[in-house]
Amino acid sequence: MTEHRTLRVALLGAGSVGSQVARLLREHGDDLSERSGARLELAGILVRDIDAPRDVELPRELLTTDAEQLILGADIVIELMGGIEPARSYVLQAIRGGADVVTGNKALLATHGAEIFEAADQVGASVSYEAAVAAAIPIIRPLRDSLAGDRIERIFGIVNGSTNFILDKMDREGLDAAEAQRIATELGYLEADPTLDLEGYDAAQKAAILASLAFHTRVSLDDVHREGIESVTADMIEDARRAGSVIKLLAICERIAADDDGDDAVSVRVYPALISREHPLAAVHGGNNAVFVEAEAAGPLMFYGAGAGGAQTASAVLGDVVSAARRHLAGGVGVGESARQNRSVAPIARITTRYQITLEVADQPGVLAAVAGVLGEQGVSIATALQTVEREDSAVARIVIGTHRASEKALSATVARLAANPAVGRVVSVLRMEGE
Amino acid sequence: MTEHRTLRVALLGAGSVGSQVARLLREHGDDLSERSGARLELAGILVRDIDAPRDVELPRELLTTDAEQLILGADIVIELMGGIEPARSYVLQAIRGGADVVTGNKALLATHGAEIFEAADQVGASVSYEAAVAAAIPIIRPLRDSLAGDRIERIFGIVNGSTNFILDKMDREGLDAAEAQRIATELGYLEADPTLDLEGYDAAQKAAILASLAFHTRVSLDDVHREGIESVTADMIEDARRAGSVIKLLAICERIAADDDGDDAVSVRVYPALISREHPLAAVHGGNNAVFVEAEAAGPLMFYGAGAGGAQTASAVLGDVVSAARRHLAGGVGVGESARQNRSVAPIARITTRYQITLEVADQPGVLAAVAGVLGEQGVSIATALQTVEREDSAVARIVIGTHRASEKALSATVARLAANPAVGRVVSVLRMEGE
Repeated sequence: MTEHRTLRVALLGAGSVGSQVARLLREHGDDLSERSGARLELAGILVRDIDAPRDVELPRELLTTDAEQLILGADIVIELMGGIEPARSYVLQAIRGGADVVTGNKALLATHGAEIFEAADQVGASVSYEAAVAAAIPIIRPLRDSLAGDRIERIFGIVNGSTNFILDKMDREGLDAAEAQRIATELGYLEADPTLDLEGYDAAQKAAILASLAFHTRVSLDDVHREGIESVTADMIEDARRAGSVIKLLAICERIAADDDGDDAVSVRVYPALISREHPLAAVHGGNNAVFVEAEAAGPLMFYGAGAGGAQTASAVLGDVVSAARRHLAGGVGVGESARQNRSVAPIARITTRYQITLEVADQPGVLAAVAGVLGEQGVSIATALQTVEREDSAVARIVIGTHRASEKALSATVARLAANPAVGRVVSVLRMEGE
Repeated sequence: MTEHRTLRVALLGAGSVGSQVARLLREHGDDLSERSGARLELAGILVRDIDAPRDVELPRELLTTDAEQLILGADIVIELMGGIEPARSYVLQAIRGGADVVTGNKALLATHGAEIFEAADQVGASVSYEAAVAAAIPIIRPLRDSLAGDRIERIFGIVNGSTNFILDKMDREGLDAAEAQRIATELGYLEADPTLDLEGYDAAQKAAILASLAFHTRVSLDDVHREGIESVTADMIEDARRAGSVIKLLAICERIAADDDGDDAVSVRVYPALISREHPLAAVHGGNNAVFVEAEAAGPLMFYGAGAGGAQTASAVLGDVVSAARRHLAGGVGVGESARQNRSVAPIARITTRYQITLEVADQPGVLAAVAGVLGEQGVSIATALQTVEREDSAVARIVIGTHRASEKALSATVARLAANPAVGRVVSVLRMEGE
């Protein structure tokens, strides 16, 4: 067997992912050497408290609280601390010190990606982050490498396992949102502070990362139109179920037609939407993730797997470590994150999609005509309309309208008019319909 | 923008994939330079006949019949000729001349992979072949790079679009095999000589390639247990449909427990099998492909997309070309195909799986007991048994038995005994049941 050069690996963070990375680095040492061409020596593990109790036993002599010293001597730095600081400073320090960086930190990349990739470009270092999106599912590398000779048109998928678990529970067991969230928390699908998941921040961070990579531009969290699942009720899910649909929290990144200035733009958005039960994404249950990628030559591709988990995410980290090691040995420069196509991010008002509008109306003649009239005035075209009376003795009817593609702008105006119309008792819900 | 070094690309073959590669290389030139760091110059296209009519217009001055000369001056050689010779000689010549090779030639890799990868290792060249399996679906790179830090346990999927198209047509439209094949031929899913697809050779070539890569060993076409779809009848598909299953041609590569010598072995096999209609693979329609990969840390992953097509396959080729260009610029050695874990390939007799046995028997008392007795003698345990009489006036009954896991050896012995049993009129079918 060949004599392998040794590369020193610094691990920042020993949480659920970090501890699995440490385990796999030691257990699969020979395989990793064979595949990377280097002996990967775990030089140290940065922790906050050396004496803290841990699930996975870590060699005490590797634990350190001295980040500077650990990073200084490293060839490859694995950042799994999460959060912005001190992760950002450590990553920049590692890059400037000549190390290659592997990170799973989606918050950091979605907010400070530009700064980090520029720093890496300046010194020719690589920054890899397969673990930042969809855990073990290979999605970053396929977008960056496999489709490097193609033109990506659209990315469309379920990238947050926690909210998918909740929506799936509600759909399959008829639970209300609070009960589904309680179970998700118990089973560890939600953090103590569930805001990041429920309000769509986590999915929006991932969408920003995917859009930046796919469209060779720079999209940050603030650019992403974001709606969470707080507004999704058991009734909405039940209505969807009866109509052969399911509600999923979707992340969508797509090229959109040139605006008035003639430049192609991109749209990056996260919201709960109706999709047909026939669509493959409808079959993504529990905490799983699935991402559709549509490219010009390749056509539609789908990537599916677990969306979270310590071991799963560690698998993605180690794949990146092996590539970083090969690159470190070969020298040369890392694959830069090209942002040369400085595309504008279109506001949500420019997006067109199909909508389902559910209204409670007075059960009297002429109401459907009045509602249809409001849509017509705004140029929103009706694809399907269904009027039902809930109970025979009720004076209230329900109208469910499915529209053809319409702009968000026209739709908002329509909904405002409908809400103000005396024949309309209540706008029950407005949902986008995706996946066609 | 940075000044890019020029790399000379030789394209061998201008068929449906080659012509699309030529088109994309020219149309996406700037993007490819940006992503690879090199200007990719199409130096020439090897064709058999310069004057042959072509679907895609190719610049006449690039066409050549002089392979030696074209390869001699190339930095990257793309081999899309198919077949063993002269493709093998050209690929070896390219490697020895210092070029990196990109190929979509599954027949070549499945039969002469060892020779080619050894030649590449000797000079530090890279050989990439994403296009050889499942067209544009990224599967080679995820196995080689993304899962490089994990341990792959099993690969399981539909890797031949032509047979999937036929089986899907038979299932969804109730066609018989001949009619479905006729349509597949008309639509271009089958070649003039359909043997490679129908008899499972194409799927077996891909299985050999996937198993070699995933298990770091060398599996060639001859090692693969291969059964095609010739034996699959409309009746079998209809029976499966009624029972909530579907028949798919599956390629399966898996680690199996140590044999008597204590060494881990692998099993690589291709055959039509029953899977539940609930299984995601059951939803793979038409000419699509889908591959499940189960790894120790990552858990199950699925990759889905078109299984064939000129543009689709060209997308995979160009992804490899971009990586080859980066590597060529960086210098250093290519990622070798590690075959150090020289695992034995287990004979099919050692494999255990579940089976469904369908028998025609005399409709008289005691037959089910006799049949059950034969299975018991051979140690094959019954999971489900169903006896039906087709028509009231018939003297013939049908027995469908689902077994628990049993070895192929025990199963073969059982079927032989059943066929010889006077109570059994006919063994209608024996199918493996997979996907649990």
